[in-house]
Amino acid sequence: MVAPVTAALLIIGDEILTGRTKDRNIGYIAEYLTGIGVDLCEVRIVPDVEAEIVAAVNALRTRYTYLFTTGGIGPTHDDITADSVARAFGVAIDVDPRAVAMLRERYQPGDLNEARLRMARIPAGADLIENVVSKAPGFRIDNVFVMAGVPAIMQSMLDTIAPTLKTGARLIAETIEAEGLPEGIYAGGLSEIALAHPLVSIGSYPSFSATGFRNQIVVRGKDAEAVAKAVSAVHDLLRRLKGDGAPI
Amino acid sequence: MVAPVTAALLIIGDEILTGRTKDRNIGYIAEYLTGIGVDLCEVRIVPDVEAEIVAAVNALRTRYTYLFTTGGIGPTHDDITADSVARAFGVAIDVDPRAVAMLRERYQPGDLNEARLRMARIPAGADLIENVVSKAPGFRIDNVFVMAGVPAIMQSMLDTIAPTLKTGARLIAETIEAEGLPEGIYAGGLSEIALAHPLVSIGSYPSFSATGFRNQIVVRGKDAEAVAKAVSAVHDLLRRLKGDGAPI
Repeated sequence: MVAPVTAALLIIGDEILTGRTKDRNIGYIAEYLTGIGVDLCEVRIVPDVEAEIVAAVNALRTRYTYLFTTGGIGPTHDDITADSVARAFGVAIDVDPRAVAMLRERYQPGDLNEARLRMARIPAGADLIENVVSKAPGFRIDNVFVMAGVPAIMQSMLDTIAPTLKTGARLIAETIEAEGLPEGIYAGGLSEIALAHPLVSIGSYPSFSATGFRNQIVVRGKDAEAVAKAVSAVHDLLRRLKGDGAPI
Repeated sequence: MVAPVTAALLIIGDEILTGRTKDRNIGYIAEYLTGIGVDLCEVRIVPDVEAEIVAAVNALRTRYTYLFTTGGIGPTHDDITADSVARAFGVAIDVDPRAVAMLRERYQPGDLNEARLRMARIPAGADLIENVVSKAPGFRIDNVFVMAGVPAIMQSMLDTIAPTLKTGARLIAETIEAEGLPEGIYAGGLSEIALAHPLVSIGSYPSFSATGFRNQIVVRGKDAEAVAKAVSAVHDLLRRLKGDGAPI
């Protein structure tokens, strides 16, 4: 059995906490990591405050295989992620010649002012993560990956990072439509199935629209046979409850 | 000066961490709380695991004025929020007659099975939060508000909760378009403005689309005069940089 590979995600930025910017990175990263066999176990959103970033980085990097961060690596005064990560690791931070070389692909020497050089500040010992969109790199230090907050840039950085990651068994998720059955009717039977199939986790997800509730049951697990058995049990349950199979 | 009122938000659910469901509550709640003068300071997303929920509830409720949670209060076995919150507070939990009365508005006595009665399990000492959509209530215990995860239900619960909250001064946020100026050009001047206006926080937010980067500068603060002064300073900076004012 492949050992699980876990991850946390840290979203950094006042703009998310004030609601000014609606996050589009969490869902993308969650789906992406799940798809490659990395289990996202926790997400936090913190403001542009160094002590908060340092505390969250240290809490999360020590607990999970990987920590990914987004946001706060631009040229303005509120971009304090690199300095905060350096502090979290207790390492020095300075303008990195490799990062300057990357910025030179975009900026003429005269345009590479102090603010833009801020984007080349990289903690000692970090490896750079290429940015094909706007050149200012992200970086990896130990098990922490620091990425941009702009979705297009973050997504390309994640594509660069993914092949370097350890991965575990991929989560298999099967979705079953409850087709009109209310949660309260199948909940008892579903609970019994969950108990009888300890290798899978089963979730029930109602959504609500103008046409009323729609319920979906999701069976998740890393053992294909165990998932298939539980899915089959759920189908049997729904059939019985709809009355076109054997009575309960 | 009004004392600040702070809050954290805890999103509970495997479906968010696996990317199966894309969260729509964080941005809504962030904007809503900011709008009424409650400062959202931290968000966490944790899985449907009791120990994780208990740890997050206790970490967040002791640190902020309020904690809001979403998700995990339905009738199925994976809905463990109420039990987890009871454990976090070290109080008993049982089927609550007030909650049963609410459920009776929707369900005939014969339909109120064991699973549905699970939705009436409320920690001792909690007040109920009405659910006009599907009747199963949320609850408040001390400074923790437990809400549904389905956005329409959560939103109506938040409307019910809001008038009962202490609120602080509302955050004033003014957005200034950088109108084609790149961040790296105004970053130095913006940093000086940020230093000279300690009562406000200033953020710079690039977004990227097919037409290239667009930058917005946001000045936030609770003192209208301080915000106005900083906004004016930002406008002056941008004018100077665009060359239609006095040189820098």
